[in-house]
Amino acid sequence: MKQGFDDIVAKVKECGRKTVAVSVAQDSAVLEAVKEAKARGIADAILVGDEGKIREIAAQIDMDLTGYEIIHEPDMIQASLKAVKLAHEGKADMYMKGLIDTKNFLKSVLDKEVGLRTGKPLSHVCVFEIPGIDRLLFLTDVAFITYPTLEDKIHIIENTLPVCKACGVSLPKVAPLAAVEVVNPKMPVTVEADELTKMCEEGKIPGCIVDGPLSLDLAIDAEAAKHKGATDRKIQGDADVLLFPDIHAGNLVYKAIVHMVKVKNGCILTGTKVPVILTSRSDTFETKVNSIALAAVVAEEMKRNAG
Amino acid sequence: MKQGFDDIVAKVKECGRKTVAVSVAQDSAVLEAVKEAKARGIADAILVGDEGKIREIAAQIDMDLTGYEIIHEPDMIQASLKAVKLAHEGKADMYMKGLIDTKNFLKSVLDKEVGLRTGKPLSHVCVFEIPGIDRLLFLTDVAFITYPTLEDKIHIIENTLPVCKACGVSLPKVAPLAAVEVVNPKMPVTVEADELTKMCEEGKIPGCIVDGPLSLDLAIDAEAAKHKGATDRKIQGDADVLLFPDIHAGNLVYKAIVHMVKVKNGCILTGTKVPVILTSRSDTFETKVNSIALAAVVAEEMKRNAG
Repeated sequence: MKQGFDDIVAKVKECGRKTVAVSVAQDSAVLEAVKEAKARGIADAILVGDEGKIREIAAQIDMDLTGYEIIHEPDMIQASLKAVKLAHEGKADMYMKGLIDTKNFLKSVLDKEVGLRTGKPLSHVCVFEIPGIDRLLFLTDVAFITYPTLEDKIHIIENTLPVCKACGVSLPKVAPLAAVEVVNPKMPVTVEADELTKMCEEGKIPGCIVDGPLSLDLAIDAEAAKHKGATDRKIQGDADVLLFPDIHAGNLVYKAIVHMVKVKNGCILTGTKVPVILTSRSDTFETKVNSIALAAVVAEEMKRNAG
Repeated sequence: MKQGFDDIVAKVKECGRKTVAVSVAQDSAVLEAVKEAKARGIADAILVGDEGKIREIAAQIDMDLTGYEIIHEPDMIQASLKAVKLAHEGKADMYMKGLIDTKNFLKSVLDKEVGLRTGKPLSHVCVFEIPGIDRLLFLTDVAFITYPTLEDKIHIIENTLPVCKACGVSLPKVAPLAAVEVVNPKMPVTVEADELTKMCEEGKIPGCIVDGPLSLDLAIDAEAAKHKGATDRKIQGDADVLLFPDIHAGNLVYKAIVHMVKVKNGCILTGTKVPVILTSRSDTFETKVNSIALAAVVAEEMKRNAG
């Protein structure tokens, strides 16, 4: 019953063919990922940017550009606005960062006319397939929202639910994490975790089961949960979503896993009209391809919900 | 050049024979660790607690009590005070928690007459041997100080230095961690990391090299540091000490490593007159034994410094 990225790729192929709009596409690492995504049948791409440079890089990485739409726009800001507009208008199903700095990329995402705003705050979700864990783990937010308020955390959970659903988890268990599993007024994070839990019980956060505060062992390790006698908890080592107290905790755990464990992972930005792929230069090739696959199933899920 | 717990155990054997005073020793898991520590030549033990119960448990776990000093004291508080006094007076080299709650155990550690106060705040350090990393990593503080101030962080570093030295790291590289590696006034953690770095440069934190803020990849992964072009940093993937922003970040990373990676680890409390072993019931047998070995080399180092 192991669930992993192979299942996500299999799901992509059940969906209608997806297309990613690439913002300032003249980036070698991004083009390699796009090429691989097309080769594996995950997604087609529309490449927006400097056509000459795109063709030059494509030649270097042995990428056949037949079948790719290329929109020539040498100005980076204009290229990002043209690319995001494709997603805005439904001509592309997801939007991906190329050779443009994050700040200007996000400006295009948030552009009032051609961007992907939904009125919700954006958040980041990273999906992990970890050896020894028989399901996908959804870590959030490890990269975008720095110090989430209680309200932010509700939005983060809501943003993550379609990602879970797209990956086949229809009623995810959400663990607001802390160093401890009991409420301690001296640790505000535990108080907020408790509030989220109660709000979920009251039906205010539908579509999931929230149980916190939880320490990481109780969230992911059923043996540890049993050992600690956590038999009254709604989550006993079987959490799907790991909700982090802040960006430092989230990012440090994310990087510990990436650098110490042989994992597969993919990340997207959500809270947007379509999934946004914002890979970093330190991400591996495989992570970039996985992120496109993840975005593709999430795009399908969003369409299904909207339609 | 791989450094690990085998080296620590080898070091213990070069030191003079060490003795651990066990507080309320009638605990099966603790006695098993004590038995193993003796069998491996790591440490002898003085068992303080209910003698009848100690003998009963020893029989169950096939532990020969010959050669152990047993001090009969059925009252838990009194037993903890008698046990800590042994360490206070130098009759034992380290102090270990048995079947007593953490709160009362710490009360004995902090007792003004027979305890182990040094005037410094206590902090926790966890030593990890991680596959793929060729040196020991010292994580602090993942369990004790909740929200360390700048001053606390200086004490945490100072408390950790003898632990590093005891493990053969004479000039440790200390990485104050954050989600990012640049100072951002909106992230106070990064500002404090920068202050610690400057204080170290000014000679105010001697005996180590501090460089922060650092993201975890730059702290532990030389390839990532190279890839990100961090060639001007004092730490380029070769940090020894990982200093966490707060207990949530520290504890979540600690548990991620313990539950996802095949590691060896041992933990102690420092800032005390002698090392204090405060293992938790969720620690494995091996972790408990490693913690005793770690405490033994740290006890030797402290004695050398005092003498």
